[in-house]
Amino acid sequence: MIGIDWGTTAFRAYRMDARGGVLDRIDRTAGILGIPPGGFPAALRDAIGPWLAAGESRVLLCGMVGSRQGWVEAPYLPCPAGPAEIAAAVVPLDFAGAACRLVPGLTAQDAGGVPDVMRGEETKLVGLLAGLGAAEALACLPGTHSKWARLAGGRVTGFATQMTGETRAVLLQHSILGRLAEPGPEDDGAFRRGVRRAGEPGGLLHHLFGTRALGLLGGLPAAGTASYLSGLLIGHEIQAVLAEGRPAGPIHLAGSETLARAYALALDEHGLAYRRHPDDIVARGLAQIAETIPWP
Amino acid sequence: MIGIDWGTTAFRAYRMDARGGVLDRIDRTAGILGIPPGGFPAALRDAIGPWLAAGESRVLLCGMVGSRQGWVEAPYLPCPAGPAEIAAAVVPLDFAGAACRLVPGLTAQDAGGVPDVMRGEETKLVGLLAGLGAAEALACLPGTHSKWARLAGGRVTGFATQMTGETRAVLLQHSILGRLAEPGPEDDGAFRRGVRRAGEPGGLLHHLFGTRALGLLGGLPAAGTASYLSGLLIGHEIQAVLAEGRPAGPIHLAGSETLARAYALALDEHGLAYRRHPDDIVARGLAQIAETIPWP
Repeated sequence: MIGIDWGTTAFRAYRMDARGGVLDRIDRTAGILGIPPGGFPAALRDAIGPWLAAGESRVLLCGMVGSRQGWVEAPYLPCPAGPAEIAAAVVPLDFAGAACRLVPGLTAQDAGGVPDVMRGEETKLVGLLAGLGAAEALACLPGTHSKWARLAGGRVTGFATQMTGETRAVLLQHSILGRLAEPGPEDDGAFRRGVRRAGEPGGLLHHLFGTRALGLLGGLPAAGTASYLSGLLIGHEIQAVLAEGRPAGPIHLAGSETLARAYALALDEHGLAYRRHPDDIVARGLAQIAETIPWP
Repeated sequence: MIGIDWGTTAFRAYRMDARGGVLDRIDRTAGILGIPPGGFPAALRDAIGPWLAAGESRVLLCGMVGSRQGWVEAPYLPCPAGPAEIAAAVVPLDFAGAACRLVPGLTAQDAGGVPDVMRGEETKLVGLLAGLGAAEALACLPGTHSKWARLAGGRVTGFATQMTGETRAVLLQHSILGRLAEPGPEDDGAFRRGVRRAGEPGGLLHHLFGTRALGLLGGLPAAGTASYLSGLLIGHEIQAVLAEGRPAGPIHLAGSETLARAYALALDEHGLAYRRHPDDIVARGLAQIAETIPWP
């Protein structure tokens, strides 16, 4: 089968054997934002044509390709949901030459009754669940919009998104904090200072201005500003999660090398145990869902 | 005398009588960012030349004109500081035809030892102190960088900056939240919802993403997004201030009409008493400081 994670700014395809082993893989920067209206079938064929010619006949897609800006909008599936519910809700896509299915995103509500959504991460969580079984666990998927998900009984029981990565990016690119920052290598010392600062009183909006005051008065090197800001924001993210209870077991962390490393440092700073998983846990999730689908 | 508040993006001058009464006033958009190097004396003469010709000989300036990017950098004065300390620390400016003095900014440290700074707001606080005497009070000066100051014994004893206004602006202009927002009139209902949301668990970074999820799923009208976001951020700002103790008396609020109204709504929502002061309390502060300076 072919499994595809098609996001806003990236396209990643896996060719897998019957047991979910990855035989081959394609990475492209052709995210959904670059696809013209009606252009999804052609873009897909262009990417995986050789695999189809070699006999593959089943394609499962996840990610923002299932959003309003994507190929077809797949309705969000409410939590709790696991591989069975997700497989039962896949959306068929019109594509000549292969059976093509789209994984739905998930939705959840927090204590305040405010909804939350994910697309693509549900498939990574299914990949994690494959290794965790029915145990209760907390998963962290760092990203532009980081997802923290509670897993239990082999299903995703709820989740919360933190807009950490995007907030960092707009502050660095467009606010007074960016004017202070100078390029430099990751500064773990400045990062850890930011994480610790997040535990002090004053609130995030005060801590943000403190980044500027520190820079202005010589308390923070300009080349460490970006790392300090990352630590501050990730620290606030973790504070918010801890406010709802300290997790009993290790936090399951899956993301890009750079982000997973940063989150691991921040969890360390909080004395929280974690287990890192490869970012392409999404391939395992796609294989897991594909197993349950009644293919033609 | 002539009192001037010269900020990053605006210039405001007051001609005042011996008792601090405002006789005339000039508003220009010539903030310090628009002044070429060495151009401050000429820009000042251009603005207040007619008042000098009419006999004025004393000019007192406050605001970002005293910053590194301004005319001359006036060192920050540490808190606690009141009118006497500030008047003793004014910096003389080289300007033909009038005695010209620059008000220093203030600096303070928070519980975590992180510094904070203000320039211009210290003069507004002196204006407030003129009416408050030695009483203990909490002042809120909303703006791009909102200042919350503790006043006691006729001095500013400490303060904290919240980067609320700038965070709102960059999120609306550059993040996914701005793509959801449609222009519309201020929506007090959406604003109050945002303020209440700030009191729920999850943290600011989660509440930000919730704004998107609400918009996506029809829980928030696109024209109300900007007001909801304002309420969310101002609500978090007030939550952070309240975490350090509920103020005993009314909060003294001085800012532009639009901002002061928004903060008043948010304080109402928290059941906090406040007293609004005119934004040009800065003129009163300039007159108060000028009274103590040993002019030539």
